[in-house]
Amino acid sequence: MTAYTELSAHFSRASALSNAVGILQWDSDVMMPKGAVGTRAESLALLRVLHHGLVTDPRVGDWLSRAETDNGLGEWERANLREIHRLWTVQTALPSDLVEATSRAVSACEMAWRKARAEADFASLLPLLEEVLRLQREIGAAKGEKLGLSPYDALLNDYEPGGRSARIDALFDDLAAFLPAFTDKVLDIQARRPKTAPPEGPFPVEAQRALGLEMMKVVGFDFERGRLDVSTHPFCGGADDDVRITTRYNESDFSSALMGVLHETGHALYEQGRPAAYLSQPVGQARSMSVHESQSLLMEMQACRSREFIAFAAPRMRTAFGGAGPAWETDAVWRHYTTVKRGFIRVDADEVTYPAHVILRYRLEKALIAGDMALADLPGAWAEGMKSLLGVVPPDDRLGCLQDIHWPSGGWGYFPTYTLGAMTAAQLFDAACTADTDILPGIARGDFGPLLGWLRTHVHAHGSRLETDALLTQATGRPLDAGVFKAHLERRYGGDQE
Amino acid sequence: MTAYTELSAHFSRASALSNAVGILQWDSDVMMPKGAVGTRAESLALLRVLHHGLVTDPRVGDWLSRAETDNGLGEWERANLREIHRLWTVQTALPSDLVEATSRAVSACEMAWRKARAEADFASLLPLLEEVLRLQREIGAAKGEKLGLSPYDALLNDYEPGGRSARIDALFDDLAAFLPAFTDKVLDIQARRPKTAPPEGPFPVEAQRALGLEMMKVVGFDFERGRLDVSTHPFCGGADDDVRITTRYNESDFSSALMGVLHETGHALYEQGRPAAYLSQPVGQARSMSVHESQSLLMEMQACRSREFIAFAAPRMRTAFGGAGPAWETDAVWRHYTTVKRGFIRVDADEVTYPAHVILRYRLEKALIAGDMALADLPGAWAEGMKSLLGVVPPDDRLGCLQDIHWPSGGWGYFPTYTLGAMTAAQLFDAACTADTDILPGIARGDFGPLLGWLRTHVHAHGSRLETDALLTQATGRPLDAGVFKAHLERRYGGDQE
Repeated sequence: MTAYTELSAHFSRASALSNAVGILQWDSDVMMPKGAVGTRAESLALLRVLHHGLVTDPRVGDWLSRAETDNGLGEWERANLREIHRLWTVQTALPSDLVEATSRAVSACEMAWRKARAEADFASLLPLLEEVLRLQREIGAAKGEKLGLSPYDALLNDYEPGGRSARIDALFDDLAAFLPAFTDKVLDIQARRPKTAPPEGPFPVEAQRALGLEMMKVVGFDFERGRLDVSTHPFCGGADDDVRITTRYNESDFSSALMGVLHETGHALYEQGRPAAYLSQPVGQARSMSVHESQSLLMEMQACRSREFIAFAAPRMRTAFGGAGPAWETDAVWRHYTTVKRGFIRVDADEVTYPAHVILRYRLEKALIAGDMALADLPGAWAEGMKSLLGVVPPDDRLGCLQDIHWPSGGWGYFPTYTLGAMTAAQLFDAACTADTDILPGIARGDFGPLLGWLRTHVHAHGSRLETDALLTQATGRPLDAGVFKAHLERRYGGDQE
Repeated sequence: MTAYTELSAHFSRASALSNAVGILQWDSDVMMPKGAVGTRAESLALLRVLHHGLVTDPRVGDWLSRAETDNGLGEWERANLREIHRLWTVQTALPSDLVEATSRAVSACEMAWRKARAEADFASLLPLLEEVLRLQREIGAAKGEKLGLSPYDALLNDYEPGGRSARIDALFDDLAAFLPAFTDKVLDIQARRPKTAPPEGPFPVEAQRALGLEMMKVVGFDFERGRLDVSTHPFCGGADDDVRITTRYNESDFSSALMGVLHETGHALYEQGRPAAYLSQPVGQARSMSVHESQSLLMEMQACRSREFIAFAAPRMRTAFGGAGPAWETDAVWRHYTTVKRGFIRVDADEVTYPAHVILRYRLEKALIAGDMALADLPGAWAEGMKSLLGVVPPDDRLGCLQDIHWPSGGWGYFPTYTLGAMTAAQLFDAACTADTDILPGIARGDFGPLLGWLRTHVHAHGSRLETDALLTQATGRPLDAGVFKAHLERRYGGDQE
């Protein structure tokens, strides 16, 4: 066996473990009875330790140095080596006591966070969150030293390989300069448009589920290799060839579950479209979190809140729930799906105000990791940031800096990928519609074939072969900028309501 | 750490792997989309290899020899060592190429079996089944040499530790002498009793499921640590603290699903009642397959086909399906649930004729493993055996020696545990009702507390601490014999229909 073959077999085993973890994690959130929490935690912890043991196996380093001088390898193989090298570097960067201390600190902090959030009590969380932050800074420093990056960039790099804060600063500053005045303008436009009460429920869960499944089929989800289920927090998970999305149903409003399903289906289509020959290899994985989020937002925001899609979907919604009256007219449904509101909560935010939530978090976590800000000052800085970016100030920390699980659970460096994803989605969708003028007409008639075909060719089938900039340049002619996203917002929200 | 502590931690890790396998296996049968077959097989194979690696780890042998001279251990710890030693002996007995060859032969044979069964074509299966049999004989010889047992007893020992064919021969000969004439008598009695058509459907799946859940609750299933779902072949599986049973629904007959649920609930109660402190240790596992089957048959056959239970359940069945008329009277329902028929298919057989199916298979597999019979002679021997034990001869091999998956899938030595389980169930239920005279009145009022309490104390909570004979002696005053089972059949079927 060549060194490359050894590596490839080795990482196939790692993949068999990740796939097991993926299904067990899905089961924990969707199926597992409460009493099994402890047993399941043991199984997941062991499988993760075994996975980490495979990736950091000393033989990986030897195989890598031999394989990297092998001139007989093709482009995919070389890209696979690059991805394996990256994983190996990052995972061997951390001493095992730091991994263990983090795992313990995060468990304790997550638990305290649930209580602190419910009680809007930041002070009670502070000491535990201090500990998580301290360990994240250590992790960032350790990885940063190996990678030649600042601690924050080293953390970001786990979610967004190649992502750098200097670049994000520029992109986000551009948006931050644009959004406040733009939001004022949109709110003003929307205040003047006709008011229609939204469709009235109840909307039975079974009918919502049937509509969701129908729309997943329309969009191109492959049910031979995936499922739709219910969980408290919607997600896309599962395993290779087994992509499972979830949603939650609210019988008095069907639109959030439906758009949630379309969002997760966007993630799922990416997973289902990864290159079959490299499914179990690092090079066959999704490129990055921003590219992943671009696929969900492209589907939900770009494609499925378009007038074209709503014109197709509105009559089907009406049929699904036996609705009647003006609330079910295409125009009314479209206005309902494109309403903009200032709010305190990120996950409830619309397309226009969402970036402000993300930019705030990005700036704060960067300052906290750099040590430029004390954690005790977070609530004040949050209020100030909300005021300047969104024009509202939350009445308490429950609606403020305690709302998200990311920081307590150790997900530092993740937030910017949401808005990078939104910008990437706009740039990709624009390029797709320019390249194939049948994409929008297709959507209008419920035929997502042209769109999915373009995404398969230009995004999904590449897995991680290309790095993010190269992927985007290949697909759209240039690396990411904020221009297309701003133009999209202008066109959808800033004019005469297209 | 003492050697015992090392062992205990080591086998907890093995248990974390088995629990992962249990859930993934459940998922394969209940949730998994078709396209994931290959991916899932990779994950399961890897986890099983890792589990085998833990059990056969060379350190286990060292720890065992040190722990076995440790005088400070209590009874449970010593019993745990005995069980660990047994597992270690058996799993280290096989050279890894034999394990691998078996795995390959079984996969090929199972696949061919599905086709051969559908086409009633034994000849096409013969060469592949020959190979499986050859390997099973090798496995039996290898394990037998280590354990000082005949090849058949060594295979049996995997499912029924301590079980020996000499003993089973005696028990089964006793039954085989009793059953043919007794079956004639029962059929004669039943031919003379009043005829009532069974309840007429359709019985909607949702109503069947609700009734199943209601009855599981009545019997004592803990839904905080388990679930009920649907699969093609009903089973009880899952993990520690997460016991999952399945059933399948037929909208034109609800009784098979309901009795199936009660059967699997019997298995599940055993799993849920294993000793909490040793859940992850070998000593905390169910004692053997015959004891496991005794718990399902005790629930299904002894308790839930009793007049007492049917009197409680019949009105609830009627309510569940909005039924009316004579078919729903307690007497009619009880007659429906205790009808005896000669048939070709084991899994469709009733309590009276089932043992004949098992005795036939037991005698044949013993002869095949011993080399006393050629596999090519199986169809003829099958017909002859059915004739003498049951009085019917199947028209083809689909309804004959091709009906079960056990032999193609390498489950040689398993069959006798079904009927050992039926006899054990009768002996345990009889002892329970004698010890606590409120058990039957309890069942009649839907209160399974007294029965479950007795089973918890005398069976479930022991795990594998006692060996099978000791367990049964402790619970019933003597080791297994066929007497109580025969008396039970006489009482329920042989008299004036109690």
